[in-house]
Amino acid sequence: MLGKLSHIAIVVHDLEAAIGRFRQMFGARLLERDFLPETRTDVAVVELGGVHFELLSSREPDSKVGRILREKGEGLHHLSFDVPGIVAQIGQLQSAGVRLLDEKPRRGVHGRQIAFIDPRETSGVLIEMVEESSKQKSESIPE
Amino acid sequence: MLGKLSHIAIVVHDLEAAIGRFRQMFGARLLERDFLPETRTDVAVVELGGVHFELLSSREPDSKVGRILREKGEGLHHLSFDVPGIVAQIGQLQSAGVRLLDEKPRRGVHGRQIAFIDPRETSGVLIEMVEESSKQKSESIPE
Repeated sequence: MLGKLSHIAIVVHDLEAAIGRFRQMFGARLLERDFLPETRTDVAVVELGGVHFELLSSREPDSKVGRILREKGEGLHHLSFDVPGIVAQIGQLQSAGVRLLDEKPRRGVHGRQIAFIDPRETSGVLIEMVEESSKQKSESIPE
Repeated sequence: MLGKLSHIAIVVHDLEAAIGRFRQMFGARLLERDFLPETRTDVAVVELGGVHFELLSSREPDSKVGRILREKGEGLHHLSFDVPGIVAQIGQLQSAGVRLLDEKPRRGVHGRQIAFIDPRETSGVLIEMVEESSKQKSESIPE
């Protein structure tokens, strides 16, 4: 069972331009701006329509986000949902025969525990589960 | 300015299978199930994580959804936001030089007024605006 929608992640070529456009065009509110050295990802969290959006970019073409941009281009990337206990949730899905990209929770930045479900299980939609108790945003991009 | 997130639309190959999986795997709640003859689209609305998801499918390969499935496959398709007055919103965006896929609002099923923004303006994310006063779901898929 998934909890609340945590955020919608979008991969963008130019983070500053994207933040500017979402603010000016739609009245989005910038909540956070960060650089995540482990995955060389530039992140901005904006609030729009009652939902958090994680805008992800990278200046380095060989980083995970750089590769996504090169291979798939900009656009919607994944949906993230809170789960109360990520280990239990992974076990439940595995018992039901659901394929996961992460069979064990892994550590996002700030210690957040996350795992991705194989999008073949979910009509091509990439879904991230995030342990509720972990407060900060994840920088994790599936391999 | 966009209002509340109205729904997240997902295009799927097999609607019954997708509904079943979202219910069983995640505890999604089925709210509505419909066939929209004008665009030959099968639609299901499910609630998951506090958000409405519109699952769209079509058995006819030459329909709009059929073409999307053939050309891009399954997956996240668009985000839909409420707007208080869609004509004013379109005018505002046009004044700011923002390209739209619909320069005039068009009628979704049940008289709902909708318009899509050109995804080149929004980092590849397809965004639908829906007039708040119109109560029912839209079946509209951009051309």
